[in-house]
Amino acid sequence: MPKLNENYLNLKASYLFSEIAHRTAAYKEANPEKGAQIIRLGIGDVTLPLGKVVIDALHEGVDAMATSETFKGYGPEQGYEATRNAIADYYKRNGVEVDPGDIFVSDGAKSDTGNITDLFGHDNVVLVPDPVYPVYVDTNIMAGNQVTYMAGNAENGFLPMPDKSQHADVIYLCSPNNPTGACYNKEQLKEWVDYALANEAVILFDSAYEAFITDPELPRSIFAVEGAKKCAIEFCSLSKTAGFTGTRCGYTVVPKELVFTASNGEEMSLNAMWNRRQCTKFNGTSYIVQKGAEVVFSDEGIKECQENINYYKRNAKVIADTMTKLGIRFFGGINSPYIWFECPNGMESWECFDYLLQNIQVVGTPGAGFGENGKNYFRLTSFGNYEKTVEAMERFEKLFK
Amino acid sequence: MPKLNENYLNLKASYLFSEIAHRTAAYKEANPEKGAQIIRLGIGDVTLPLGKVVIDALHEGVDAMATSETFKGYGPEQGYEATRNAIADYYKRNGVEVDPGDIFVSDGAKSDTGNITDLFGHDNVVLVPDPVYPVYVDTNIMAGNQVTYMAGNAENGFLPMPDKSQHADVIYLCSPNNPTGACYNKEQLKEWVDYALANEAVILFDSAYEAFITDPELPRSIFAVEGAKKCAIEFCSLSKTAGFTGTRCGYTVVPKELVFTASNGEEMSLNAMWNRRQCTKFNGTSYIVQKGAEVVFSDEGIKECQENINYYKRNAKVIADTMTKLGIRFFGGINSPYIWFECPNGMESWECFDYLLQNIQVVGTPGAGFGENGKNYFRLTSFGNYEKTVEAMERFEKLFK
Repeated sequence: MPKLNENYLNLKASYLFSEIAHRTAAYKEANPEKGAQIIRLGIGDVTLPLGKVVIDALHEGVDAMATSETFKGYGPEQGYEATRNAIADYYKRNGVEVDPGDIFVSDGAKSDTGNITDLFGHDNVVLVPDPVYPVYVDTNIMAGNQVTYMAGNAENGFLPMPDKSQHADVIYLCSPNNPTGACYNKEQLKEWVDYALANEAVILFDSAYEAFITDPELPRSIFAVEGAKKCAIEFCSLSKTAGFTGTRCGYTVVPKELVFTASNGEEMSLNAMWNRRQCTKFNGTSYIVQKGAEVVFSDEGIKECQENINYYKRNAKVIADTMTKLGIRFFGGINSPYIWFECPNGMESWECFDYLLQNIQVVGTPGAGFGENGKNYFRLTSFGNYEKTVEAMERFEKLFK
Repeated sequence: MPKLNENYLNLKASYLFSEIAHRTAAYKEANPEKGAQIIRLGIGDVTLPLGKVVIDALHEGVDAMATSETFKGYGPEQGYEATRNAIADYYKRNGVEVDPGDIFVSDGAKSDTGNITDLFGHDNVVLVPDPVYPVYVDTNIMAGNQVTYMAGNAENGFLPMPDKSQHADVIYLCSPNNPTGACYNKEQLKEWVDYALANEAVILFDSAYEAFITDPELPRSIFAVEGAKKCAIEFCSLSKTAGFTGTRCGYTVVPKELVFTASNGEEMSLNAMWNRRQCTKFNGTSYIVQKGAEVVFSDEGIKECQENINYYKRNAKVIADTMTKLGIRFFGGINSPYIWFECPNGMESWECFDYLLQNIQVVGTPGAGFGENGKNYFRLTSFGNYEKTVEAMERFEKLFK
């Protein structure tokens, strides 16, 4: 009988979204009339269609598959050169130099942030913020690793900073953060980079929401910080940048500077290891999808994507303005699609969920679903329809004023 | 400093295809005139374009992304119901009942055959045939596992059978085989299933080339064998079935019957584990690609794909007939796109590579690249152009007659 990976027994079943669905359905059944008024601001997924430039490029990609002359079979596991160059160029416009050879195109950041544990051994000190996107924790549990939580809270603006008295080997950071919307500034990231260099640690930096940053002072990439190429891997995605959640494309930057010494004294390059991992367990991203991805980063593509992001950001502002008006403490909402607010009247997050559902038929996401430190917080997202968002906030204002 | 996965140090660098490219380029440079005559029959990738039915469906998938009403965000990690049902229906037409709930759609069989090691613990007896597709071995080395080779050779028709005196926990089988083209019959697979059941082992069955089977007596799925659902996972792909090597789609069947007992006595279901793995480290296959995949398995789609397969099979026959005429012992070539022949005149496979390149400007793949047991064999593939294949075989016949 095969020995299975028993680390899976240590995973907690995630009931967050199923519990939300369950409670919402029960409410609708008991209150059909009010149930029909439900507005969902819990969704972490884009809703606006892809723009014309990208759609045209995707059609071109499909057409290439229709004739012998242009047909594409297996592509490079690392992604097509044109796609990698387009990504490097996008970095450049944002003031960051990245070698196209360090960029790996994939089917999404979830795959890459999940699979990156393949490269690490055991017994590392792995720092993970709490609250956080559950994938970092679950993938480490699956690999048999322990994680050390760093508390995000109102005091540190949900931006935990390094504790210099503590050693770390691997550090997960997500900025702008999911679920809190909090965003590290350059000085804060510099402190993390300095700490990582001092510890010879690796920062796994998730920048999936970078396109929501409009403040030019805030870094959109960890590589905007000096020294980061010696200590950081960056994961990014077209999911939120370009509405690719269903189209699927992401990219990961593994600088060639990331070289560590094995126990036998041999040098090991994380770039070479990730390349080997991808060449062995991945066969490249669909050519069709890469054609679309390539134009996302063209002048026209960026403009088109920015229009959708502006739509979401307008929603975020409606929510943030309501919180400000009501004097409810919140995080995010400016350089992020997420608004993370403190549950009013000392409610816990699931209590707040029921209260909003029953009184104003607004569905959001209880913070407890993202970690212990989320238990008095609540996440609303800006990915919904503008008019619905306005209506939800009108109801919200009446309820709490 | 992070401890890295030092198992990567045990991987052998794969020089097979780079060495082929290097020797071919050197020959071309030294012999520009003859170099222009090179015919490549080494390629393991399809070359014919996708058919109209699939192209139309892919365009439809793209169009769905262009309007709010039809836009698709995150899809189910397991694949869309329509795609899973289409695959179950395809199995049914080939006489095999598979529960759509056991089917997981992915971006390709390489990802799935690679990532499956995530589910297993260490110290299993892992059987892998030699010669073989290198991914099985490399992914096990990456995971820190040892593999036990089963010799494929002329005596067993490159179809190793179970050694009942030996215990096994995990067994990799690939039929029709890459690189040998050899294909297990039902009785042989039954013997493997019985052996796996007796050992409580799991068979990891790679059926990526099943669409090349035309002999109705040969099983196209391990689930054609009674009892297989209690001991086997099957990996398949649209790469060779439908020319999706660059479009990217595969599927894996993990029967719910596969339940094993953990060391603490708890039951662990491989289906539940794979589901958790995919939900944590994968975000579903592109909706656009799944639209194309769905119609591959329609009546029209199957007909269209079959035309391409027939083209390749005609090439295979040209090669196989040449071998027969020359009295060269070979395997595959009938229910497979690969022809695996014994190097004439006692040559070793790299010697044969140079001999063919220099004398008839035909490039193939030396068997040594697939394992120790391939060192006197050579792989030719049927994925090339028909006229070129005929010409290559005319040259081959002149050389060896």
